[in-house]
Amino acid sequence: MTTPLGPGPEFDRIRIIERALGSLASGLGDDCAFLPGGWCASTDVSVEDVHFRRGWIDPEAIGWRAASGALSDLAAVGARAESVLVGLVAPADEPAEALAAMMRGAGEAAASVGARIVGGDLTAGRELVLAVTVMGRAVHPVRRAGARPGDGIWVTGMLGGARAALLALLDGRPPDPRALGRFARPMARVAQGEALAAAGARAMIDVSDGLAGELGHLAAASAVGVEVDGGLLPVHSSVFAEAARIGEPPAVFAARGGEDYELVAAMPPDYSATEVAGVPITKVGVVVAGTGVRFRVGGRVTVVGGFNHFA
Amino acid sequence: MTTPLGPGPEFDRIRIIERALGSLASGLGDDCAFLPGGWCASTDVSVEDVHFRRGWIDPEAIGWRAASGALSDLAAVGARAESVLVGLVAPADEPAEALAAMMRGAGEAAASVGARIVGGDLTAGRELVLAVTVMGRAVHPVRRAGARPGDGIWVTGMLGGARAALLALLDGRPPDPRALGRFARPMARVAQGEALAAAGARAMIDVSDGLAGELGHLAAASAVGVEVDGGLLPVHSSVFAEAARIGEPPAVFAARGGEDYELVAAMPPDYSATEVAGVPITKVGVVVAGTGVRFRVGGRVTVVGGFNHFA
Repeated sequence: MTTPLGPGPEFDRIRIIERALGSLASGLGDDCAFLPGGWCASTDVSVEDVHFRRGWIDPEAIGWRAASGALSDLAAVGARAESVLVGLVAPADEPAEALAAMMRGAGEAAASVGARIVGGDLTAGRELVLAVTVMGRAVHPVRRAGARPGDGIWVTGMLGGARAALLALLDGRPPDPRALGRFARPMARVAQGEALAAAGARAMIDVSDGLAGELGHLAAASAVGVEVDGGLLPVHSSVFAEAARIGEPPAVFAARGGEDYELVAAMPPDYSATEVAGVPITKVGVVVAGTGVRFRVGGRVTVVGGFNHFA
Repeated sequence: MTTPLGPGPEFDRIRIIERALGSLASGLGDDCAFLPGGWCASTDVSVEDVHFRRGWIDPEAIGWRAASGALSDLAAVGARAESVLVGLVAPADEPAEALAAMMRGAGEAAASVGARIVGGDLTAGRELVLAVTVMGRAVHPVRRAGARPGDGIWVTGMLGGARAALLALLDGRPPDPRALGRFARPMARVAQGEALAAAGARAMIDVSDGLAGELGHLAAASAVGVEVDGGLLPVHSSVFAEAARIGEPPAVFAARGGEDYELVAAMPPDYSATEVAGVPITKVGVVVAGTGVRFRVGGRVTVVGGFNHFA
């Protein structure tokens, strides 16, 4: 039941945990756990000063992005979002109004994809932690495994906006407002995931840690290779200025950007679309026999890494 | 859909959050959320230096008690435990072996009640946080609301052991080993909860924050009063020495003890048992018309408060 994992130190730790758990666990390594009755569930944890800083976004956005990040895992398996549980750790002197704003943000993110908050926990701690569990149901559940040579690699929306905001915020510069919107209030592509699943998606993953890294996981789980043409990547309009500032080609910048929460899907060869459930969709590459991710930019083949909290 | 909550500052915060959420939430305030298909789900968060200290228990016990505390919420609604998700926040330099031990402890607690770990999240943070989400299914779901005047108040197992250990640990004294076992490796009463539900339990709650406080929530949710005879309480053998040390009657000490994770149920008047699914069960009081919890010890009526992280 174990899905092969891509490379990286965070996955090394998960591998050690998987070995320690043995038969105490099952089905780890996909975006969601798949339960009887078509239910899918996932937990996603956001930590102050790791995933966000208080000075960057208001309490409502803190709740929104924590919930959207979790809901994105339902999108990645093609599930309909139904129920959300929020475990909230906050300093004992946190104003009740700030707690309420965080929960309202989480609730609005849930409502934006048709789900509701059904429970949670509130406890004291030194730093803010939002542990969001999402539950939904999938008619056609899609996993990371399942891509076949010849499939097209498709990406929803635009990439790199959240990273463009993050770099500006880390530098203490005001971010491009379009980029900040992507960082502070990302949209979980739940309707798009359901539509792609219904359209026959073979494998799917959400772009939480960068397209390149996510494709590495999808390729490893599917035991295939992936070739991406950087020239085809849908680059968010805010990327160009930030990419120029650090001397990265915009496509590489966008491919390394985490937390856009777009979907990347391996679709059957005959799939063709410009839009899915109201969001643009772009073919950026193909699945090939072999292993690994080859990323072509300006005639050169690059291997691009993703973001890792333990790196 | 909102269950009336008992008194206390933590519940004041939850009430503010509920108001802020409005229609974005539903069904908050019970031990679990009740989902279609008989599914029940709950999230429970354990934080270093709030719920445990590293010096007190080993990493495996940290994982065990975090998972048991969450699984106890399934027990409290009479659900069968099925799936567990663990969101783990740990310092970036936490040894992989310690992470694996925590997860193994959580996995063993899950296995002890027939459940498995199906997913989770691992991220860096300053302090250890374990956010455990449990999912199960209930044939006869039992809520906090539903107790009726004339029902008996029944308690599984023994109370006060975890608190006896906690007081010793806080004092830097070696705890009674029987008490430490209760604190470090509490048993989630899942089989007992299912059996009580099948036997017609009208209302049920688990003793995570002290019997007295939990009965306050059950009474408030059911719109009834509860009368408890302290002389009938099943007091854990480790309680007497610790209670004498702080000059509390053992029954009061036991009734104020949190984290025993025993169940307290309002059972129909004709219910009678000495054991449920291999664990002793004791009638300690009755449900009456009215409101609030009256706790009789040695001829005096006392109102006893529970433990509150924000107090």
